[in-house]
Order: sequence, then structure tokens, then C-alpha cells
Amino acid sequence: MIRRFVFGQPIETGAVVQDIPVCAGEPEYMTVTETEEAIILSRTMAEDDIVYGLGEQVRGINKRGFSYISNASDDPVHTEEKHSLYGAHNFMILAGDSNFGLFVDDPGKVVFDAGETQIDTLTITAGKNCVIYFIDGDDLKEIVHQFRGLIGRSYIAPKWAFGYQQSRWGYECEDDVRRVVRGHHDNGIPLEAVYMDIDYMEDFKDFTIDGDKFPDFPAFVEEMKQQHVHLVPIIDAGVKIEKDYPVYEEGVRNDYFCKDEEGNDFVAAVWPGRVHFPDVLNSEARKWFGNKYQWLIDQGIDGFWNDMNEPAIFYSDKRLKEAMDEIISMKGMNLDIHSFFHLKDIVRELSNSAEDYASFYHDMDGVRVRHADVHNLYGYNMTKAAGEAFDRIAPDRRILMFSRSSYIGMHRYGGIWTGDNNAWWSQLLLSIQQMPALNMCGILYTGSDIGGFGGDTTEDLLLRWLEFGIFTPLMRNHAAIGTREQEVYQFTHLDNFRNIIRIRYGLLPYIYSEYMKAALKDEMYFRPLAFDYPQDKQAAGVEDQLLVGESLMIAPVYKQNAKGRYVYLPEDMLMVRMSAMDNRSCEVMEKGHYYIEIALNELVFFVRKNHVLPLARLGDSVLTTADLEESSYEWLGYVTDQAEYELYTDDGISKDYIPEEQWKIYSFTAEDFADNFSLQNID
Amino acid sequence: MIRRFVFGQPIETGAVVQDIPVCAGEPEYMTVTETEEAIILSRTMAEDDIVYGLGEQVRGINKRGFSYISNASDDPVHTEEKHSLYGAHNFMILAGDSNFGLFVDDPGKVVFDAGETQIDTLTITAGKNCVIYFIDGDDLKEIVHQFRGLIGRSYIAPKWAFGYQQSRWGYECEDDVRRVVRGHHDNGIPLEAVYMDIDYMEDFKDFTIDGDKFPDFPAFVEEMKQQHVHLVPIIDAGVKIEKDYPVYEEGVRNDYFCKDEEGNDFVAAVWPGRVHFPDVLNSEARKWFGNKYQWLIDQGIDGFWNDMNEPAIFYSDKRLKEAMDEIISMKGMNLDIHSFFHLKDIVRELSNSAEDYASFYHDMDGVRVRHADVHNLYGYNMTKAAGEAFDRIAPDRRILMFSRSSYIGMHRYGGIWTGDNNAWWSQLLLSIQQMPALNMCGILYTGSDIGGFGGDTTEDLLLRWLEFGIFTPLMRNHAAIGTREQEVYQFTHLDNFRNIIRIRYGLLPYIYSEYMKAALKDEMYFRPLAFDYPQDKQAAGVEDQLLVGESLMIAPVYKQNAKGRYVYLPEDMLMVRMSAMDNRSCEVMEKGHYYIEIALNELVFFVRKNHVLPLARLGDSVLTTADLEESSYEWLGYVTDQAEYELYTDDGISKDYIPEEQWKIYSFTAEDFADNFSLQNID
Repeated sequence: MIRRFVFGQPIETGAVVQDIPVCAGEPEYMTVTETEEAIILSRTMAEDDIVYGLGEQVRGINKRGFSYISNASDDPVHTEEKHSLYGAHNFMILAGDSNFGLFVDDPGKVVFDAGETQIDTLTITAGKNCVIYFIDGDDLKEIVHQFRGLIGRSYIAPKWAFGYQQSRWGYECEDDVRRVVRGHHDNGIPLEAVYMDIDYMEDFKDFTIDGDKFPDFPAFVEEMKQQHVHLVPIIDAGVKIEKDYPVYEEGVRNDYFCKDEEGNDFVAAVWPGRVHFPDVLNSEARKWFGNKYQWLIDQGIDGFWNDMNEPAIFYSDKRLKEAMDEIISMKGMNLDIHSFFHLKDIVRELSNSAEDYASFYHDMDGVRVRHADVHNLYGYNMTKAAGEAFDRIAPDRRILMFSRSSYIGMHRYGGIWTGDNNAWWSQLLLSIQQMPALNMCGILYTGSDIGGFGGDTTEDLLLRWLEFGIFTPLMRNHAAIGTREQEVYQFTHLDNFRNIIRIRYGLLPYIYSEYMKAALKDEMYFRPLAFDYPQDKQAAGVEDQLLVGESLMIAPVYKQNAKGRYVYLPEDMLMVRMSAMDNRSCEVMEKGHYYIEIALNELVFFVRKNHVLPLARLGDSVLTTADLEESSYEWLGYVTDQAEYELYTDDGISKDYIPEEQWKIYSFTAEDFADNFSLQNID
Repeated sequence: MIRRFVFGQPIETGAVVQDIPVCAGEPEYMTVTETEEAIILSRTMAEDDIVYGLGEQVRGINKRGFSYISNASDDPVHTEEKHSLYGAHNFMILAGDSNFGLFVDDPGKVVFDAGETQIDTLTITAGKNCVIYFIDGDDLKEIVHQFRGLIGRSYIAPKWAFGYQQSRWGYECEDDVRRVVRGHHDNGIPLEAVYMDIDYMEDFKDFTIDGDKFPDFPAFVEEMKQQHVHLVPIIDAGVKIEKDYPVYEEGVRNDYFCKDEEGNDFVAAVWPGRVHFPDVLNSEARKWFGNKYQWLIDQGIDGFWNDMNEPAIFYSDKRLKEAMDEIISMKGMNLDIHSFFHLKDIVRELSNSAEDYASFYHDMDGVRVRHADVHNLYGYNMTKAAGEAFDRIAPDRRILMFSRSSYIGMHRYGGIWTGDNNAWWSQLLLSIQQMPALNMCGILYTGSDIGGFGGDTTEDLLLRWLEFGIFTPLMRNHAAIGTREQEVYQFTHLDNFRNIIRIRYGLLPYIYSEYMKAALKDEMYFRPLAFDYPQDKQAAGVEDQLLVGESLMIAPVYKQNAKGRYVYLPEDMLMVRMSAMDNRSCEVMEKGHYYIEIALNELVFFVRKNHVLPLARLGDSVLTTADLEESSYEWLGYVTDQAEYELYTDDGISKDYIPEEQWKIYSFTAEDFADNFSLQNID
């Protein structure tokens, strides 16, 4: 049961696709206080209550004990004190004696104080114009299922985008990309896509390609395609101010850019220096900007990532001038603690300033809206621009799309990556903990920058991260310019990397099926243990294990120098230990606590009782999903009674989801798996 | 067995107090390569080899997989990628099939690459002039014991400094301090000392007191002393350049300050703006600066903390001018990625720049030495200045002293705190992991800023941190200006805080005895499990439990929302669970792995088999160590056979350590502890 409460005159965000009648009266779960500026919801939390959700945020699966602020932020340092990351995902669940879900549909700033200020009190502060949905349900999965129905079907990526992908800010030219492909394929390591970061453009201008670096781009795309390697260019939010640059000229001519206080095109700066922002909240401008992607699609491109769309602002023209004047006035002074820290603040506060976000405007189809009031919709609508355009340009096939900034609703148009993380072990754990929270909010196609974006990774961190990353739908190794080169072939023990990445391909029939279930049936691909074992108090506290699809539980190693880890099994399970597709052992383990040794080059996962999973048979020469043989599978199973598995297959690219053709149910009995938990050759 | 290898013409650091003959030939454990600039030691590490030591650094107890650079750095963000913190502690142990210790006595930059660059290779790069000591030993404790003998006896703090202490950058005046004392004592919470951060001085001038804030300082010190509360003022490295300020004038007149390239007093800036640095590497200047502490001692002060002595530099005069000119030249430009990032770098790189450290000089008793070559000796010698002065000013009694920056050798003159950490759960774990590494290097009087210095703490984090902090010799809650007020009485569940802090006082007879054992017998107060259970492979991997003194093992909870944790018992132990001194339960547990529930307000620790510990009997009114009744003890023990305990008592202040008077051996049998593991009233 979903109840909808409306406060003030909310802006239509498009987050929700169902028409829910407005509820009169008070929501039963929380006390509502309306002030001049805000709607404040609050309630006491019992000691064991858990807060789930909130999507892309720091800290654990249980969000209690901190405040989270929905305020899309370009912040590359994801330490524990950060209240906001790139996305704004205002859905949470309070789980305790009674459970309920809550979605605040407010595109401005929303604060979820989950016991930071007062340890026992949950307080949510939204703008005075907002819609709040309360979702009843005893079952946590059912609450999410209802919410996901409310917000509409999640984006589905093409199948190739479930392969292993390599990225780096700093692949400058054709030869850099060729070297990366060879580095993988010549070493027998699968690689499906290479990303083109901002380096490929002419002076960081969207929808341009630097002809010195890529002299014949369509030919190069084709050359890669011959090797089944996809090129995925980045698209930035800001459009460079440059005379005769067509995107700029068209935008100016047609009033497609956001306006400043005076009605002029708002000037901010990002990579190219001064830019304008396309007003993607305006339907005409959105259509125009979306159509620009066609220029790359026509050259053979079939995937994109949208970046800097919080939107990130290095500085605004106006504030840079003020800052410069103030700095100049400090010349020759004895700068002490106050004035020197002020100098540093002047420079630091130039970027992503709330003042700037309050100083420009959208034309929401006739209504002038201050950006700050709809800040969290920008990345969403940039991605919606692309998604709507793809439906026009290529209505029959899927194009890869994911974004840095997002708001619930965007999940229908693309996935996200979790932004500029760091090569820290703690960020691997954070990534594990973010996945189920994102899934609750409908964001299924997602993953973190494997190995870490900022800073120098290490061989052990990268390998452990890959051992988790083989389960994330987006499995991409990505790093920043200036950091250690972290393509897997750069390291000492290459075999380990090849073996682990090949396991991803072996698991693809399962991963892809489970992804499609989650997308087409409004379910979660990654789940906290409590979602499937609601009566188990121990499971409720587990912060570093996840259920993946219907059959698996994972317990990644995320600590440096760890030779193993503690694992809690909420029921009897089959432990599968692999160091390669053809090097595997299985052991039945009873419900309970274990310390399990897991060598650096080993993957351990757990098959739930009376569950099975299909494995692809991998030839030695599997380098991309195109090489996968999927006419028959090996099945891995822990079946004491019987099991069923619904397998999804399709052509990997078309948008027709036809249940009777694409789903096939396989049934198994205990005897099928008598031989080492494995069943060969079922077609 | 200690062997000493000398390369080039090393600078005498004073780290070592024993005269070890120089070894000819090559050290057996590592390959040595001498280049024009460096001494490079390297060797292959086996898969299970562990690197211990290196003192104050990030990451785990096992330092493998990262590079650590000894280069004293004022860096308040202790994330995993930081190669240098405030101290330089060049002692490490490689533990594997054979164990050895290694100390690089080089006051310049030393790099320990413990498998970051190549996962299986340890590489140490020191300057071309250095002394390297290799220490043999099968037993890890024995290696440390030898090393500690080499570097001399660790500093011993007065007993009151083992009580609970409160600090905050931002206690401005007498009334602020009074409020803090009342906030604790009126609520029955012990409090022993209040710290005076930079706020107390006149314009951040060392050895001044702002008369507006403290109109009669000696009277105020006395007022506090009546309540047995000590005031601990901060002393900064930089001396403000200000005409008629006596410390400045004397320093200039006598050439006591560090010089620039041209022989003028070097101008850097810190809190007060422009300062000079006392040349504490010069014995005359050191004596002069040390004598300055007397002015505060004469007013009743008996404890200090030395800060900003890496030395931290906000900017140098010269580079600020250059930076300003460069910024001004950028005015009006279209700042793109390159130029805008450059602008940010200009400001960021003003502080703590290697270029500045290379641009000033010490007069080491006649020899002009570039600061960069002896950078890591500065904080050490500032603290040595104080320590040597204390021996002159107050030869018979202990004065509290700890420092931010340090080098091995300084441990004889004071402790350290672990600097400007953050209110992050991960920093609590870091603190746990740093303790044994610091102990190896002789630094015993140490602890972290409980609750976290930067950022807003939360009630649960502070409480869990205190539950670990009650075992650290320095137990101090400290926070930065601008953060949430984090005195324990600011939070909802005050009882929890009172109960936990009172347990510290109950444990003091044990903590103090064990501290004195570690100091007087060259032992470690905190030890990794592997040091006491060398044959136990499982113990070798434990990164979040410590042995504390001879009788205890701790396993702190350091994860938000955790209701318990996994614990490994390397032998049968007695689990003691307390939520208050008078609310305790005990349970014998066999060697093995456990998941143990530990509520937020509970302390759990483990008594080793055939070990005991003394507990103080606490009246309700214990507010400081002065209130402790120590004529008899309650004993807690897990004795299946027999146990002995060597208890240390003294007057807490004098410097005479007379074994026959201060040590007393107590012997116990199994029957003594038949009644609930407790034995009452043994005097």
C-alpha cells in the first residue's frame, strides 16, 4: 500500500510513473511539522531499528548514526564525513518492529538525519513543496517491489556491457586504445570495451573528436568492432563558449542554455574553461541536446557515459572575478591563521558553490525555476535527454548509458557509476555497501571504479576489488590521469587477473538472467541478508555480505593482507571456491559463523540451499561476450530436495522482452547434483 | 644481536644510546645498492611474510602492500593513500621464516616500499649518509626488546596524566574551562586535565597568556589544582615576528633562529602569520628555548604539548610573494582544466612545501645543515629542548610532555598524540593499529584524539572510541574548533559515558603497572597477537585485537551500528563483560573463533589464562586519580593453575624508580578465584 502526501506546490520531477491519489491527514509513521521553509518529519527509533536505502551515500548498509543530504555534489573524496555524493536518492526504509518505506520527491536539498544529532531520533527535512510517499509492508523486499513499481522499470544495458571494461583518463589516441586492447587480448584476458575520457575531444567540446588523435574515427570504431571491442565516449554537461562551435552557436541562438539572474546565458567553467549549461529541464533544449548524440552513434558508437552533470562547476565567471580581486587585495599582508585560511577558502569555495547554484535558472517549459530548487534533476535530465533521443535514433536496440549524477527517475534511462572513488580498501567496502542501496532506488546497472579512480592502486587491492567486481553489472577498471597504470596486465601475477576475469564470463548467464529478473520484475539484484532472512537477527547486522540474484551469497575480502575473513551463513549453503573456471572445489556448510581462508587469488561464494546457477562453458579463447557459447551450460547447485531456475537469454541488444521466448525454466532434483554439485551439459 | 652498518658520513641524531661497533661487509638480510644519492636495500618477501613497525603511519598492523615515507608532515587527513604522517619512525621488523629488525637512522627522507611497487619485494631507500642497524632474533618481542635497549628508556608521564583528559581547540577563557570541569565533575564523571589550545595565547605567541581571557593565570591554575585538575597548554614551534616580544627579540639577538640561504632569519608563517623557527638542533638555542617553559611552570603548569613542530609551514614569505604574483597574472584569463587546477595547486602547495624545507638551515653546533637533510629531527629536538629543561627546572618530578612530530630518540623526552585525526570509524581502527607500531619504536605515552579531531563526532562513535581509549596511556577527548561540541556530557545517554570512563579509573592500577613495566623493562604495552602467540598462524593475521600488558587482550568494536564483533582467542581466556564497574559478568571461553555480542554501552575484554589484574575500588566520588584508594585492590583473574602479578605503585610524580620499593609481587592459586573469577580485598 502506497500513500501519497502533498505539501505546497511541488515541482513535477517525473520520478514516479504511477498515479497515486493524494492522502488527507497525517502519515502514521512520522510526525510532520510544517515551517515557512520546510517540511520536517520525525520519529523516535528503537535501539534495533535499521535505516536502509538512500542510494549513493557513504557509510554502511544500515545508514543509522549519520546525516545524509540529497544535494548532487562533485566530490571525489568519499570519506565518512561526506553528507552528499553525486546522486540524490530520497528513498529509505525504516526496518524494525514494523517496516515502512518512504520516498521524498523533492528535487532540492533534503536532509535525512538518521540519528546523527540525536542518537534515537530520525528527522527528515524537505523543502516546503514536496510529495512524500509512504509504503507499507511487512516484508522489506515487498516494500522495495512496490516502490520500484511506483518509479517504473529500470534501464537495461546491452549484454556486451556486462563484459569486462577498461577505462582511464589519459588514453589519448588510437594507439593508446589499441595498446590496451592488445594488452588484454594478447594475454588471453577478456575485454569488452575501452572508455574514452575527456582526452578524445577537441578542447573538451562535447560532440567533437580531436582529429589529430583519431584521424579517421569511424574506421577506428570499426577496427575495434572487428575485435568486438566497444568504444564508450564521455559526454560532459558544459558546452564550451567558443565562436563557430556549432553546439554553442545553436544553443545560444535557440535559448537552450540556462540563464543567469539578468537573463543572459549563465557562464560557469569546467574542463574547457567557460561554458554554458544546456537547459535539459526544458523539453525543447533536452530534445536538442539528446539529438547531438546521434553524431557519435552515426560513427558507430553504441555506448556513452554522462559526466560532470551535478552539474560540476569549477567556478562561475562572476565569483572568480570577486575572488581574484579579494586575493589581490591580500598581497603584502601578514597572513595569519584567519586571513591565510580565508585565502585557502576563497579558492576552495570557488567550486560547486551553493551561491552559484542559486544564481541561474531553468525554463521548465514556460516556468522560470531557480536551479537550486531543482538542482538534483540536472544529471537525471541530461541522461533523459540521451535516453529519449536513443528511442528516436535507435528505437530497436539498447545503447549503453550511465551517468554520474542522478535522481530517482533517471534509473529508467541509464545506470550510474559511483563516481571518483579512491584506491583505498575502505572504498571497496563502501562499494559493496552502496550496491543494495542503489538497487532499492531502481539503479541496477552500476558499479564502482575497480581498483580505485584516484591514487595509486596496488596489485592486491585491484585483485580483491575484481573479485567483488565480477558480480557488479558494470564491471569497469577506471583510473585518473597521473595515477599508476592499472590495467591488469601491468602487474606481476597476470594469471590471477586472467583467471578472475574469466570467471566473470563464466558467471554471465547467471548475472545476466538475474539482472533481467531484477529489471523486468522490479526486484533487487543485490540485497542485504536481512531482506531474505527477515527473522534472523544475526543477518540483520551483516554489513559486508550480499545476496546476488536468487541463488548466491557473496562475502568479498576487502581488507589488505587478509588471508581470509569471517562469514555468517544464514542457512546451510554450498561454499564454492575457485581460483579459475577449471579449478574449483565445493563444500556444504551449515548455518552459522565461520572464519574462511581465502587466498588472494581465490574467489569464494555461496550457493543457497535448493538453488542452482548456470555457468557458461568457456573456451580458452573467450575474449568478449561474442565468444560465449551459450547453447548449453554447466550447472552448479546445492539441491537437497528440488530446485528451479528461470534462465533468461536474448540477443543481447534488442528491446523486445518477450517472456515466452526469453525465459526458460529448468527443474532439478537432488540426484542431478550428486556428482560434486555440478551438472554438465543440460541444453 | 645488533649489527651496525654505516654509509657515508651520517649526521648524529641521538636516536641511539648504545655504542655498537661498525660491521664490515654486507648485512645478510638484504641486498644493498649504493647510488650517488641513496642507499637502497631490497629483498624478496615470501607470501606470508609480515612487515611490522614504522610507528605512526596509516594502514594495518601488517604494513605490507604500501609505501611509507618518513617525512614529518602536517597532514590532518589520514586516509589510506598518505605516505607520511607527523612522525618518522624508521624501525621495522620482517617476520617470516626468519625474523629480523631494522632501524634506519637517517633524519632525512626514507622510503619503505613494503610491496606497493612490486607485490613480493621490500625496498628501502635511505639517504647516502645513514646508519642502519639490523637486529637478529627468533622472537618478535625479543627483537623489540633489543631495539628498545638500543634507543634508551621511554618517557614516563606523571600518574595524573593516565586519567581522563578533555581538550578542544576553542576553549577561549577561564569560564570555558570551568564549564568543562563542572560538566564532568558535577555529573560524576572523572576528569583530570583540560587542555589549552592556541586560544590562550596573545596573538599565538609562545610563552604568553592573553590577559583578557585569563586575568590572573596563577590563581586560575591554583583554582583548578584545588579540584585536582591540571591545565595543559600547547606550545608551538614558530615564534612570532613582533617587535618587543621578548622571545622574538632574544632569539634574533642571539642568532637562535634558523637561517635562510642568505643567512637571515628564515621567515615562514604559521598561526600568528610570520614567524621564525628556533634552531632546536643547536644546543645553545635548544637550551634557551627549553628554559622558556619555566615561565609557565612557575605559574603552576605541569604539563605541555608541543605542536606544529614538523615544522608545519603555512607558507614562506618568499613563495607567498611568488604565488601572489602568479595568481594576479591569471586575472581575466579563461581558466580551463590546466590553468584552474594550477591555480588551486598554487594555493595548496604553499603549505609544507619541500622547496621551503630545502631553503633554510640549522647551525648544528658549528655545522651548517640544510633543514631538508634533518627535517625529521625538528619535533624531536623541540621536545628534547623541553625535556632537558625540565631536568634542570624540576629534576625530581615528572612533567607531562607529548609532541605531534617525532623521531625515534624523542621517545625518551615525551610521548606523542597521533595528531589531527577525524571523527570517522575508520580512524578508530587506525588508532588501534597504530598503537603497537608506536610501542615498538619506544613511544609508549600515546593515544589518539578520542571522538575524532576534525568533523562532527556522533554519540556512538565517541562511546566506542572511549571503550578503546580507556586502554591507551593518553586518554584524551580532543576536537577542532567549528566541530560539534564533544565533551561527553553533551550527549543523550550520559550514564554510558560515566560508566565507561569510571572503568578507566578502575583499571588504572593495571594500566599504570603495565605502562611502567613497558617503560622500565623495554617492553611493549600494546602488542599484536603474533608477538605472544608466534606459532599461531591465525593470530598472525589478526589486525583488530591487541594484547594490553601481560594479562589482557582487547577486541574493540570499531564499526558503526555493530551489535558485536568477531573475536579470535589464541588460547583459552576469560571474557569479562562490563557496562559499569559494578556491573560485570565473566565467562571462560576456549581457544577459537567467536562472534560476540557487545552492546554500545558495554566493554568486553579478555583475561589470559593464569593471569590476573588488579582493579581499584572506586567510591562514587572518584573524580580524579587523587581520589583513588590504592591501599587494596580487587583482583580479577583466570587462574587454572597459578598466577603471579607484579604490581607497580609510586607517588605518581617523582622520578625515582626503585624496584624494591615500587614493585610488589602477588601470587595466586586457582582456589583464589573460585568465586566468580574475583578476589576481594588483598592489600
